[in-house]
Amino acid sequence: MNEIDWIFHRRSIRKFTEQTLSSEQITTLLEAAMAAPSAMNLKPWKFIVVQNPEQLTGLRKILPFGKMDAPCAIVVCGDLRSIKKMVQERFWVQDCSAATQNILLAATALGLGAVWCGVHPVATLEKAIRKTLDIPEGVTPLNVIYVGYPAEAKPARTQFSEKNVFSDKFGNPRDL
Amino acid sequence: MNEIDWIFHRRSIRKFTEQTLSSEQITTLLEAAMAAPSAMNLKPWKFIVVQNPEQLTGLRKILPFGKMDAPCAIVVCGDLRSIKKMVQERFWVQDCSAATQNILLAATALGLGAVWCGVHPVATLEKAIRKTLDIPEGVTPLNVIYVGYPAEAKPARTQFSEKNVFSDKFGNPRDL
Repeated sequence: MNEIDWIFHRRSIRKFTEQTLSSEQITTLLEAAMAAPSAMNLKPWKFIVVQNPEQLTGLRKILPFGKMDAPCAIVVCGDLRSIKKMVQERFWVQDCSAATQNILLAATALGLGAVWCGVHPVATLEKAIRKTLDIPEGVTPLNVIYVGYPAEAKPARTQFSEKNVFSDKFGNPRDL
Repeated sequence: MNEIDWIFHRRSIRKFTEQTLSSEQITTLLEAAMAAPSAMNLKPWKFIVVQNPEQLTGLRKILPFGKMDAPCAIVVCGDLRSIKKMVQERFWVQDCSAATQNILLAATALGLGAVWCGVHPVATLEKAIRKTLDIPEGVTPLNVIYVGYPAEAKPARTQFSEKNVFSDKFGNPRDL
């Protein structure tokens, strides 16, 4: 596969086999996550790895679009406790989203499948996830990533559309 | 290079040669961007490609950490005009951040360098970028990505830290 191809091979996988992940695979996913850029290199992230069946059931009950069976969930959280008030609200969502995208791409590269289930800023979901996983105040769950061996295949794709691009070639922002 | 390695090879590149990018390269970056996942597949993104020297100078004047010379800038924007009010504020930053990370990784895979300069939610930066690029209300610039041929080399890295991970293996969320 061309080095860039698996950006297009990353698809939202929602069906998984029962096979569990190895510690090495999980560590690789987290190494990829923490290779993401962050504003002012503040790295405002925490990662909760959930493999306990009861906790996975708890997550499934909470998430409206996260009812699937997966052997592992990674909950990406923003930790705002150690960040100065002035900047804490600014960029943590962006930083943690970049880390999330790295996890999804690393999963694809490892032959795994994954799906990003949104949590923040839906207050009811945040509260329920916090309670289920015993997450302290000041740490906010951004999402739940289910990951496992895929039990479905999807073709590579981009959803590229020239309508979304503006430049000297494609059109002027005035036409946005 | 191992398929996953260039996640670690992506570094924030802030020095560029004068060599311009081809249309094919820019299109590939945008195809990668629009291969990102988005909540409910709403794809709330627009991309402004800036190669005009005067506009690039304008961006440099505005961005506190974006003073570098680059032959190209891609401004990733959220377009909230066509999205229902109820959901418009929820996930666009996350969606556009995932698209941004894909651009950075695709640039790395193409042998280019790139850096993510934050704009939203800093109101003064948003306003100045909007004015300089003639971006209409309802479309919000999230960031400016400078991209070009790298004139500096940085080693691959992760900033993995076990302190940021909580699981049966690494520690309990109670200890977060």
